Amino acid sequence: MDSFTYYNPTRIEFGRDKENTVGELLAHDGIGRVLLVYGTGSIKKIGLYQRVIASLEKAGVEYVDLGGIVSNPLLSDVYHGIELVKSNKIDAVLGVGGGSVIDSSKAIAAGAVVETDVWDFFINKASIDKALPVYSIVTLAAAASEMNGNSVITNEATKQKYSIASVHLNPKISIVNPELMMSVTKEYLAYSAVDIIAHSIEVYFTATDHPNFQSRLVESIIKTVIETTEILIEDPANYDARAEFAWASSQALNGLTSSGTGGGNFPNHMIEHALSALFNIPHGAGLAIVIPAWMKWYKDKNITQFERFAKEVFGKDSADEGITSLQRWFDFIGAPVSLPKGNIPREAIPEIAQNAYGLAKMWGMGDAYCVQSIEDILGYA
Amino acid sequence: MDSFTYYNPTRIEFGRDKENTVGELLAHDGIGRVLLVYGTGSIKKIGLYQRVIASLEKAGVEYVDLGGIVSNPLLSDVYHGIELVKSNKIDAVLGVGGGSVIDSSKAIAAGAVVETDVWDFFINKASIDKALPVYSIVTLAAAASEMNGNSVITNEATKQKYSIASVHLNPKISIVNPELMMSVTKEYLAYSAVDIIAHSIEVYFTATDHPNFQSRLVESIIKTVIETTEILIEDPANYDARAEFAWASSQALNGLTSSGTGGGNFPNHMIEHALSALFNIPHGAGLAIVIPAWMKWYKDKNITQFERFAKEVFGKDSADEGITSLQRWFDFIGAPVSLPKGNIPREAIPEIAQNAYGLAKMWGMGDAYCVQSIEDILGYA
Repeated sequence: MDSFTYYNPTRIEFGRDKENTVGELLAHDGIGRVLLVYGTGSIKKIGLYQRVIASLEKAGVEYVDLGGIVSNPLLSDVYHGIELVKSNKIDAVLGVGGGSVIDSSKAIAAGAVVETDVWDFFINKASIDKALPVYSIVTLAAAASEMNGNSVITNEATKQKYSIASVHLNPKISIVNPELMMSVTKEYLAYSAVDIIAHSIEVYFTATDHPNFQSRLVESIIKTVIETTEILIEDPANYDARAEFAWASSQALNGLTSSGTGGGNFPNHMIEHALSALFNIPHGAGLAIVIPAWMKWYKDKNITQFERFAKEVFGKDSADEGITSLQRWFDFIGAPVSLPKGNIPREAIPEIAQNAYGLAKMWGMGDAYCVQSIEDILGYA
Repeated sequence: MDSFTYYNPTRIEFGRDKENTVGELLAHDGIGRVLLVYGTGSIKKIGLYQRVIASLEKAGVEYVDLGGIVSNPLLSDVYHGIELVKSNKIDAVLGVGGGSVIDSSKAIAAGAVVETDVWDFFINKASIDKALPVYSIVTLAAAASEMNGNSVITNEATKQKYSIASVHLNPKISIVNPELMMSVTKEYLAYSAVDIIAHSIEVYFTATDHPNFQSRLVESIIKTVIETTEILIEDPANYDARAEFAWASSQALNGLTSSGTGGGNFPNHMIEHALSALFNIPHGAGLAIVIPAWMKWYKDKNITQFERFAKEVFGKDSADEGITSLQRWFDFIGAPVSLPKGNIPREAIPEIAQNAYGLAKMWGMGDAYCVQSIEDILGYA
């Protein structure tokens, strides 16, 4: 078991109606004015925006609006947010939405307290040692952004979907109300399930040292996601299933499962980021294309763990059956499981591989994932 | 799934040699002088005390010594620590030892910043809203005190073993080096294993609402403890087994497994505290006596979960077989599984029940656990 630091100071407020406490929570922390970051309008449709505003106003917390954050969130919106913070004496950033919104909030929080270009953090030209406090109300369980210090942003000029990570970006408090997730479409439910499973399996399969305890935690998350997704396809308003799905999602990428593991990395995310950057495909959809392909390409490098996965998650006896079962399940829930199913032409493989290789180098994975290897993986997709 | 707050701001520094960074970590947090709390000498035998002192001195952190903390730690030592803090301008409390030492450190930290009697916190006459910062270096994985805000102290005058819990008492940083645990005796390894399993099953069996995900996490912990204990009985210096055992131990009582569960309580701990208070039996040994007895008495109240436990943990088909398997495993590892095996006379049952009932009332469990019920449970022991 490898040495590690586990430090996750995010406080989770989980349950029905918790969003109505947001103003009080912020005021208690001495926050007088927030930048309120959100997406393209769904929080207004479900009345969440109105409840948040009411809670802020009741607690005497002022707010400046930044709506319009899109899926695969854009650097230009982050720049805009940073300007708003700097010109409005903002104390904190409150993201209300899914991973894109919370990721944008974090990037704004990091960029607003420095003079350097925030993109320098993403390309390892500068490192984060402070940030404005971030708070979140999460409406989509997938990214676990509500309980980690990660942020993934797309630079539309350079077509780079890159990331940062710092404990300074962990939300101080995240509100998780499963009821707010009931309006998620079946399509996005599927993409979310794939994303959570992706977070779970990356280190599980790639670590050179993966303790049994950590494997059991990962399998617990995956089994829970499979079970609750199947319930939610039939019964989207099932509170308990939404709740377990959401809590499992937070655990999948909050530092718990990767603690003590050695040598793990994120190849599926690395390749998917290229798909999203080039084709603006939803992250979970891109992962559903990449994961089975990568598993087929990689399985012999860690056959024992692939056999374990097959047995524990699907009750199957071989690595191949485990991979097939996962791919069929992605297909069953409505996620694309090949490039054509995701409307991405196979002719784009060289361009995708080139883009992904840029990230492989950034993440220190360039030795294991050269352009040819990435093309080979995509050959299975 | 019930609403909950999850907030665990303890930073874990896990791995070999981490204790040598303690001075640096304290100095970084602005700590100039600590109360150094430890037990009855084993940390000196293994050279840990000397390494801690060297690290503190190198970082310019002064210290005042408080050794001699015993298993089932005493209120008198807590009072002594509070006096030392108040008369020596102490900034923080550093506990180096097992659960007893860290629990004592927390009680001292809570009592040192108020004028009220610290015991008032234990008998619900006052509540904790601040404390000195606590740090820990843990040498025994069992209590999870290194990653929670709990403290259990015995008032030797009143023969009450009572507890407090507050996030203000969560250690700021806990150092967990599995190598420091290699000198634990086989006896205490067994008691520790029982204690961790006890933390895992209390809410698992007693909650009126226990989500599948939480059940899976609990079963992951129990399976890991069983697996690694059996390795450590044969090979006490097995680093990886010590490490998994320790990390599973922290997870068993840090708020993770109980999040979202409803209606759970701690009947086995409630009864065991009476055994320890009256007979000064090690906590894990007392639990090994109580748990199988309580399971036999309680099983029909939640037969589905008992059947699940039997199947998932031991591959057995009935609740009774699950209970027998656990009792036999406790016996196999060398923990006492009946009152006579723990050298406690059956004639003491009424006195034990009376003492436990005092705690049942304190913990709000008095309706479910009257004196007669506790006597009935102990009848199985």
